[in-house]
Amino acid sequence: MKYTIIAIGDELLIGQVTDTNSGWIARHLTPYGWEAQSFKVISDDSHSITQAIEEAFEHTDVVLMTGGLGPTKDDITKPALCDYFGGELVYNETTAANVRSVMAKRNLQVNEYTRLQAMVPTSCRVIQNQVGTAPIMWFERDGKVLVSMPGVPFETEAMMEREVIPQLLKRFHRDEVIMFRTFMIMGIIESDLAMMLDEFERNLPQCLHLAYLPQPGLMRLRLTGISADAETLKSQMTHQEKELHRLLGKAIIADEDIPLADILGRKLRESKLTLSTAESCTGGNIAHVITEIAGSSDYFKGAVVSYANEVKTCVLGVSPDVLETEGAVSQPVVEQMVRGVSELLHTDCAVATSGVAGPGGGTPDKPVGMVWMAAKCGDRVVSQVKRLPGDRHRVIDRATTEALLLLLRLIQQ
Amino acid sequence: MKYTIIAIGDELLIGQVTDTNSGWIARHLTPYGWEAQSFKVISDDSHSITQAIEEAFEHTDVVLMTGGLGPTKDDITKPALCDYFGGELVYNETTAANVRSVMAKRNLQVNEYTRLQAMVPTSCRVIQNQVGTAPIMWFERDGKVLVSMPGVPFETEAMMEREVIPQLLKRFHRDEVIMFRTFMIMGIIESDLAMMLDEFERNLPQCLHLAYLPQPGLMRLRLTGISADAETLKSQMTHQEKELHRLLGKAIIADEDIPLADILGRKLRESKLTLSTAESCTGGNIAHVITEIAGSSDYFKGAVVSYANEVKTCVLGVSPDVLETEGAVSQPVVEQMVRGVSELLHTDCAVATSGVAGPGGGTPDKPVGMVWMAAKCGDRVVSQVKRLPGDRHRVIDRATTEALLLLLRLIQQ
Repeated sequence: MKYTIIAIGDELLIGQVTDTNSGWIARHLTPYGWEAQSFKVISDDSHSITQAIEEAFEHTDVVLMTGGLGPTKDDITKPALCDYFGGELVYNETTAANVRSVMAKRNLQVNEYTRLQAMVPTSCRVIQNQVGTAPIMWFERDGKVLVSMPGVPFETEAMMEREVIPQLLKRFHRDEVIMFRTFMIMGIIESDLAMMLDEFERNLPQCLHLAYLPQPGLMRLRLTGISADAETLKSQMTHQEKELHRLLGKAIIADEDIPLADILGRKLRESKLTLSTAESCTGGNIAHVITEIAGSSDYFKGAVVSYANEVKTCVLGVSPDVLETEGAVSQPVVEQMVRGVSELLHTDCAVATSGVAGPGGGTPDKPVGMVWMAAKCGDRVVSQVKRLPGDRHRVIDRATTEALLLLLRLIQQ
Repeated sequence: MKYTIIAIGDELLIGQVTDTNSGWIARHLTPYGWEAQSFKVISDDSHSITQAIEEAFEHTDVVLMTGGLGPTKDDITKPALCDYFGGELVYNETTAANVRSVMAKRNLQVNEYTRLQAMVPTSCRVIQNQVGTAPIMWFERDGKVLVSMPGVPFETEAMMEREVIPQLLKRFHRDEVIMFRTFMIMGIIESDLAMMLDEFERNLPQCLHLAYLPQPGLMRLRLTGISADAETLKSQMTHQEKELHRLLGKAIIADEDIPLADILGRKLRESKLTLSTAESCTGGNIAHVITEIAGSSDYFKGAVVSYANEVKTCVLGVSPDVLETEGAVSQPVVEQMVRGVSELLHTDCAVATSGVAGPGGGTPDKPVGMVWMAAKCGDRVVSQVKRLPGDRHRVIDRATTEALLLLLRLIQQ
């Protein structure tokens, strides 16, 4: 089933807010064989809304719309939907009761504006929003369906999962099966990978397609298959999967699309190893990406963010002399940090970072983007220095990835 | 100047990658009075590309395009651009030299695929990519301009800043001035704020517009002004800004669109206070958002992520008895954590968190989403418990925000 997503909001078009709803929706509909034709972001403006709907229905029978709903006055979506689908805005008591109940759960008073949320077009079927006050509206005409949802990601996600996806699947169904396999690749850049897989790709059956999805420090490789014959497709996918493993060997660090911290976490859990981090320039981000993984308490014990040098010496036991002579951004310091934290927190493994995240603090010897990092596993300690490009955020992100990769390689050795 | 952004990539349409380029571009063109008409995300497919370009040029004279360029075979953007603008793909030696130079800087070998990147349409002017291998292509016909850029955010951002924005501004210019003021509001929900500002909004002059941009735990309020008369607009903006301060008072915690961690950081710097964090369920995320702010080393000394209870007792000095009787997610534990970390790292202020981020670990007494947090400033310690909705990521994010707000309120008292 093909569909279009329209996101409404001036705040999106000036870049103040990033539209994450469209990607979320696509991620959750793709496994059912639903294919997004396009995402479009438009402004809070009747004409733009009507035009986008018309354009979308030219290409697809389903339009999913987010945003443009809310208690304040910059929202004009409901009248635009009335113009397009007919009907008029009327007060809906069931919706009003839902708004009151949601507000009560949050210990908030219903005021004049939240009361306005109970006004809905007569031309739609309302799906009550269980986690917010803006109602979800299902319009249908000539076999075409438009679902209007709030812009708050939490609300759209919850209501897509609970109501909208099940109702869409019930309303439409398709015969073709779609399958995905994603592989995470360590240590090969995109163009080298393309060379290695040139023949593999040329020999792929018609129903299979390979895509390269580079991300900092890692490559994702996605094999997609579409066919009416599920059994044959499954066996073809399995065959090509084996072939990829034969060609790429240990470079494949995971057979599914999971974060690097999750890949590392699974290896640690398998080997019954515990982990800690000692972070200077990454400022807690390594600990954060590790603890974003559910169940990370099985192997992660804690971290020391030693932003000030005094914390490096007093808490992690880095030698003040070495700090003085070598500077904080140096191999001996980062190695003392990694040993210090694993001793303090009693862990088998540890990673440590010290670098210049910028924009200030760079010197000719130690420029912005220079990061020393160390990893420890048992008695083995390795360290490396990287010159990472980009702004502060990018340096922190990339140093986090490189430090996790350093430990992953050390554990796999 | 109105423009359209088109992002190309199957990986975007299945939600595997989020398009951040469009928002970035808009954020950087808006201050020059450039107005995005729409963003569109489409697939790596000639027909979709041609159609999106035609559609875009119906509404705007400028189209900025990202993605669909790269050394692997799933890219078909260049031939599609040749179809639309005419010309043919030819080997461009200057571009080839640039590819070689970029690859050399990265210590990488030029292979057959990277060599393909030097093939460019004869109908475009090439802007050499200084930070990557995919060339930027500037097409122009009948006064309409299309700029094709790579999909890698780092490359697009760098090249927009260095070349594309300056060249666009030189090529087009406009008479109207656009001004923004953004205000960060603490402690008032959207619908209450709308009630408070009802009269203010009704009395705004025609050229000014107010928008409500809720984000978890905070509200952003944006005042936009557009006029041909810069002086009058400026004085009107200033007048309304004062009016907003009169109406909202201390609820306005910043007069610009900056992250909460930055607002807090500025208050700490002003008051010459230092900060540390002790984190259990937030797992280092508070330290991370604090250290994402450039210059945070002025006030932030470090953090202890005490994921394991043993770290709470041994490093932060939480009483094992209290931990046993009250549990880790409790008021006394979080208060001992905040005192412990500020003592260990010698800071004036500190925040601490302990909660159930989920999805596992919830009990009837202490369900998923329950988070205790404490803040300390000098001798004063405050604590609160929150029941935060959503999944693990959302609980961590929201707990981070609430902990920072708790400290901000304590400092402002």
